[in-house]
Amino acid sequence: MNLKMIFKIIAYLLGIECALMLPSLGISYYLHETKAVNAFLISIAITAIIAIVLYLCTRKVQKKRFYAREGLVTTGISWIVISLLGALPFYFSGAIPQYIDAVFETVSGFTTTGSSILLEVESMPKGLLFWRSFTHWVGGMGVLVFLMSIVSLGTKNEGFSLHLLRAESPGPSVGKMVPRIKETAKILYIIYIVLTVLDVCFLMFGGMSLFDATCIAFGTAGTGGFGIKNDSLASYSPYIQYVTTVFMLLFSVNFSIYYLIVLRKWKEAFGDEEFRFFWTVVVVGITLVCINVRPLFATLEETFRHVSFTIATVLSTTGYGTADFDLWPSFSKTILFILMIFGASAGSTGGGIKHIRIILLIKSLRRNIHKSLHPTEVRSVLISGKPIDETILQNTNAYLIAYMIMISLSFLLVSLDGFSFETNLSAIIATFNNIGPGFASVGPTCNFAAFSPFSKFVMIICMLAGRLEIYPMLVLLSSSTWKRAR
Amino acid sequence: MNLKMIFKIIAYLLGIECALMLPSLGISYYLHETKAVNAFLISIAITAIIAIVLYLCTRKVQKKRFYAREGLVTTGISWIVISLLGALPFYFSGAIPQYIDAVFETVSGFTTTGSSILLEVESMPKGLLFWRSFTHWVGGMGVLVFLMSIVSLGTKNEGFSLHLLRAESPGPSVGKMVPRIKETAKILYIIYIVLTVLDVCFLMFGGMSLFDATCIAFGTAGTGGFGIKNDSLASYSPYIQYVTTVFMLLFSVNFSIYYLIVLRKWKEAFGDEEFRFFWTVVVVGITLVCINVRPLFATLEETFRHVSFTIATVLSTTGYGTADFDLWPSFSKTILFILMIFGASAGSTGGGIKHIRIILLIKSLRRNIHKSLHPTEVRSVLISGKPIDETILQNTNAYLIAYMIMISLSFLLVSLDGFSFETNLSAIIATFNNIGPGFASVGPTCNFAAFSPFSKFVMIICMLAGRLEIYPMLVLLSSSTWKRAR
Repeated sequence: MNLKMIFKIIAYLLGIECALMLPSLGISYYLHETKAVNAFLISIAITAIIAIVLYLCTRKVQKKRFYAREGLVTTGISWIVISLLGALPFYFSGAIPQYIDAVFETVSGFTTTGSSILLEVESMPKGLLFWRSFTHWVGGMGVLVFLMSIVSLGTKNEGFSLHLLRAESPGPSVGKMVPRIKETAKILYIIYIVLTVLDVCFLMFGGMSLFDATCIAFGTAGTGGFGIKNDSLASYSPYIQYVTTVFMLLFSVNFSIYYLIVLRKWKEAFGDEEFRFFWTVVVVGITLVCINVRPLFATLEETFRHVSFTIATVLSTTGYGTADFDLWPSFSKTILFILMIFGASAGSTGGGIKHIRIILLIKSLRRNIHKSLHPTEVRSVLISGKPIDETILQNTNAYLIAYMIMISLSFLLVSLDGFSFETNLSAIIATFNNIGPGFASVGPTCNFAAFSPFSKFVMIICMLAGRLEIYPMLVLLSSSTWKRAR
Repeated sequence: MNLKMIFKIIAYLLGIECALMLPSLGISYYLHETKAVNAFLISIAITAIIAIVLYLCTRKVQKKRFYAREGLVTTGISWIVISLLGALPFYFSGAIPQYIDAVFETVSGFTTTGSSILLEVESMPKGLLFWRSFTHWVGGMGVLVFLMSIVSLGTKNEGFSLHLLRAESPGPSVGKMVPRIKETAKILYIIYIVLTVLDVCFLMFGGMSLFDATCIAFGTAGTGGFGIKNDSLASYSPYIQYVTTVFMLLFSVNFSIYYLIVLRKWKEAFGDEEFRFFWTVVVVGITLVCINVRPLFATLEETFRHVSFTIATVLSTTGYGTADFDLWPSFSKTILFILMIFGASAGSTGGGIKHIRIILLIKSLRRNIHKSLHPTEVRSVLISGKPIDETILQNTNAYLIAYMIMISLSFLLVSLDGFSFETNLSAIIATFNNIGPGFASVGPTCNFAAFSPFSKFVMIICMLAGRLEIYPMLVLLSSSTWKRAR
């Protein structure tokens, strides 16, 4: 294990984190939020000192060969470290008195989960609110991807960069859009920024202030879900709600589709199997739930608005709310529960199992049935007409197993707190799939404050494992990773 | 598709079903239960007529080549037909006025689920109660296995017999204990009968009547769970409860282990990896739940008795009850929920995913992690020290996928009835894993009567799919099976 190189990456990352805290500091300073200003200053100082120490210790580290293991470990450690330090402003300002709660909130931010332990957000200093929403935006596309878009690790380290990109980006197979990793990362971030700015403009057109629009857009772009009002998006105008619905869905689409659209490769873009499947699920989901909850709303428009918003928030794993879906009939709740597990598309900012994996799982099941009936025939699984590598299928199967094991284990550990079956299971599903709210005691109008510190710790692991798609956390927790270290 | 050969098998089976109804008819006749006697006579007549007609139509069918598909289709159709006809005595006697309810109860019997729609069982005619428990015993080891143990399909059809044995017996890989299928089936049934008789003796030693002991032993041996008292086993003596606990666990063990013990192959028997894993789960489960529920009971003995009984009933997927575990703390309920999914061992009479599959899934995940870190190394998955065929691993992965899809879909369909999340999910888990009771409205003190006919139909499919391990039902429902028919 090349620990020094890992620390070098982390030194860079913490430098970036310091820079990322500056806008929030600026807002707090501008609004004379003294406590928040001090909290940010101390946090930035601590982060900077650690960054400098790590940098000085690892300055002379030269390029060596790196393997997938190093990529996974770097990603896992990076996310833990930036969360632990990103939690400091909440803690030092006194806005969140318990450090474990502050870490929970920050991990929930970076992983774009949006589960909150805060009972009340409107009285929070604006600078902290901005930082809270900004973590969504940073975590959405990935902080290592950001690093790679601005820093070149050198052409010799393209392999390592690819491992990092793979470990941090969601989906079973992460392709490079262009040969150079740095360029790929840059393209991803440009698309991300353009879409976010568009969202801000549309929201401001609906009468929102720049601050509100930016915070809401950060939560939408990262598919996070932290709101800046206690009722999330319920009190905003229908226009704002529709805009957010559309953008939540747009951010659930694989970003390479947008790149293909920019290149005018229409056929490849719209022929993408995951893309088509995703929109089919959206339409079917909205239709079924609309029929089921129609009696709960006065007009058809209102039904459609709340249902499409809720389907978008659940599929994109954002977690914003306009209606308390915990009060909807069982059938709708079950659809939402299943779609929570589906999640968004690979290569988007959303969480969940990802639609491409659902397709791969169904197709590999169909192939297996075919094979058990016709043992001599050999068939490949095709996606968008192209055969899929067997390794990807094996990894997808392994992902499902790891997913089931981690969900079961976390569900068991959280049940020690004694809450209801529905609360516990949906809390784990909501955190693991990076959604935010669940059902019952963790429903859209409730929050995660009531859980014990131990359960919060379990959910922090769940959020990180969900965002990084399990493997970095598994490798980090596996003893064999550390046995051969050094 | 060789439909005629399939019908020939079904003709034999229905002949056997007629014979199996005779003891119940005898009991009803002896106890002057007029309605039940008439119901059995009509049911036997109908079954016999269908059997004779099918036999005459297919008499001249000669041996042809048979494939896995025919084996799966035969098994699927057989189970549906014997359930539809086995339900007739309940329906004609008026004991269960709705035919769908009677089918639910019979499928629940044959699949050894034990979920009941009856609110009250003690007033039922004894002949029907006996039939109800007897279906467990018949379904436990499998009715086709029984057929094969008495009828030889001819040496040319050993392949077909093996396909039937595979389709009906639980577990990822069904081995023949001895070269001939007929002998293997006979050995299985001999072990089954010996253990059942032992159970009856032990129960009668505790003061039970022959009738009661036989019914309870049938439910235990088949790991079914239909009781003959409204409170299941709660009012029986601690001795009876302990005996039943032990036998529930004994019937959850792979029967080939008993064969190895008979052959004095101690090392092979006790070195079996699934065997060891199963007992580890039993011990850990009992310990954790005992600690958690200790405050609910007066003495340590009582705690241990109820907990060990409940763990045994859940792991063996029997479904008998002595305590209302729905009132236990969340942690214990979650353990029970997870163990419900684990189920029993392959090659036993119990349901669930089976412990060997859990082991295979964990090991294939570990191999996948290893492979993603060391792409060039090739590793086999070992069970009891022997490498496992890749096809079995692929089938196990496919099984998990099919399991998840069927559970999700059934959960969604059943939610149309509007019951709670916990009720719906545990009802599906309880029927699919052939357990019996779930939590909340389908808890140990409740039953399945309140569900709509549609939901009952869904759960009938679940019970059959669970008992036959999905593939026969999937193949039966797949259009491609029927496209090439004839």
